[in-house]
Amino acid sequence: MSKVRLYVDHPLGAGQTIPLERDQAHYLFGVMRLGAGAVLSLFNGRDGEWDAEVTEAAKRRGTLTCLSQTRPLQQPPDLWLLFAPIKKARTDFIVEKATEMGARRICPVLTEFTNSERVRLDRLQAHAVEAAEQCGGTYVPEVAPPVKLGRLLEGWDTARALMFCDEARIGAADPLPEVLRAPAAILIGPEGGFSPGERNRLHAMDRASGVSLGPRILRADTAAVAALTLWQSALGDW
Amino acid sequence: MSKVRLYVDHPLGAGQTIPLERDQAHYLFGVMRLGAGAVLSLFNGRDGEWDAEVTEAAKRRGTLTCLSQTRPLQQPPDLWLLFAPIKKARTDFIVEKATEMGARRICPVLTEFTNSERVRLDRLQAHAVEAAEQCGGTYVPEVAPPVKLGRLLEGWDTARALMFCDEARIGAADPLPEVLRAPAAILIGPEGGFSPGERNRLHAMDRASGVSLGPRILRADTAAVAALTLWQSALGDW
Repeated sequence: MSKVRLYVDHPLGAGQTIPLERDQAHYLFGVMRLGAGAVLSLFNGRDGEWDAEVTEAAKRRGTLTCLSQTRPLQQPPDLWLLFAPIKKARTDFIVEKATEMGARRICPVLTEFTNSERVRLDRLQAHAVEAAEQCGGTYVPEVAPPVKLGRLLEGWDTARALMFCDEARIGAADPLPEVLRAPAAILIGPEGGFSPGERNRLHAMDRASGVSLGPRILRADTAAVAALTLWQSALGDW
Repeated sequence: MSKVRLYVDHPLGAGQTIPLERDQAHYLFGVMRLGAGAVLSLFNGRDGEWDAEVTEAAKRRGTLTCLSQTRPLQQPPDLWLLFAPIKKARTDFIVEKATEMGARRICPVLTEFTNSERVRLDRLQAHAVEAAEQCGGTYVPEVAPPVKLGRLLEGWDTARALMFCDEARIGAADPLPEVLRAPAAILIGPEGGFSPGERNRLHAMDRASGVSLGPRILRADTAAVAALTLWQSALGDW
């Protein structure tokens, strides 16, 4: 049985006490059945991973006390994942997978053919936290507010390479070594593909390159993992 | 609006008529609202992709007539995905993703720490068919009956390389160029990892190599896509 891992939005340091929120107390004491004296792992995305002891356990509240750091913060490489939101469950999966794969920042992008309900940012950020708890990471990627593709490209920092995955470019992608550069952002298009105008605009950008992910059409969450794999295995922290 | 794609378990050839099953007729005429004269795409995993016309449309039955082949069969490279079944939804995802990524064969493997309900083979095969319909493939990978890891390794064909993903080997994996060989099988372990005995046995095999998928622990479905990406981009049909 591996140690319980919990994300807390609180500074971590030797002797630091951390008051628990109601749902955290419920999870630790009600669901995981921990009691006073139990030791668990904490991280906050900034101070690495710490062992902490339960020093007060009640039904709806509790206190943890930090013991010692078990791992330093391991920030993932400077890689962003930009994606056109899709159906709710698939969007949740993209955030989960981008966190596991080590994206530093996750940003929903609204394209002309994006067909999606309202993006619930708090919900997506909670998914990133949960995935970080699960995958043993010490870092939680920021989920940025949705932005329109046009506005994103207008303000594009030319120091950052943009790898876009465009199903319409199958067989006409740029060679991988030219595509894989750092820092970078990976852009996954919507199910309907980019519009002709968006495609022209992406191709005209100096720092943007199309990447091929094979002869079959990948779902957006599959494409996100595949593109992150190519970059991480070549330039990242794998 | 792209053309409807349908998998049929029936020979395809010019002039061939295909009687529809009840659920296929419901899907085409009830859900997709096609009528007599409509043209759709058919594939059967063997004869490539064909345009076919609806020549009879009733509520619970119908007939299609093959017009002409639009694409030849594109069989994926000789790559298998072996995986320890996990929770139902995740197992479905693994089959879906292996199909999109171009695995030729998918096989559930029972390990010592596999913690899973009964594997429903017909359900998994149906997921492979659905993923092939969705991803534009002309091939449907076979989902093989579950097999115990010990028995699988006993009968291992030494011509086939075995890439296993073992979270316990983080930082101690074999270098990628030595791992990526063809034909191959990728083996994704269960959530609890391989048992010490299984791990020793895998390491002692001539044709088996451990592969690292980064410093974070990936869920099984994420690991499957990542490992398939490494192999496909280096040796496969991408």
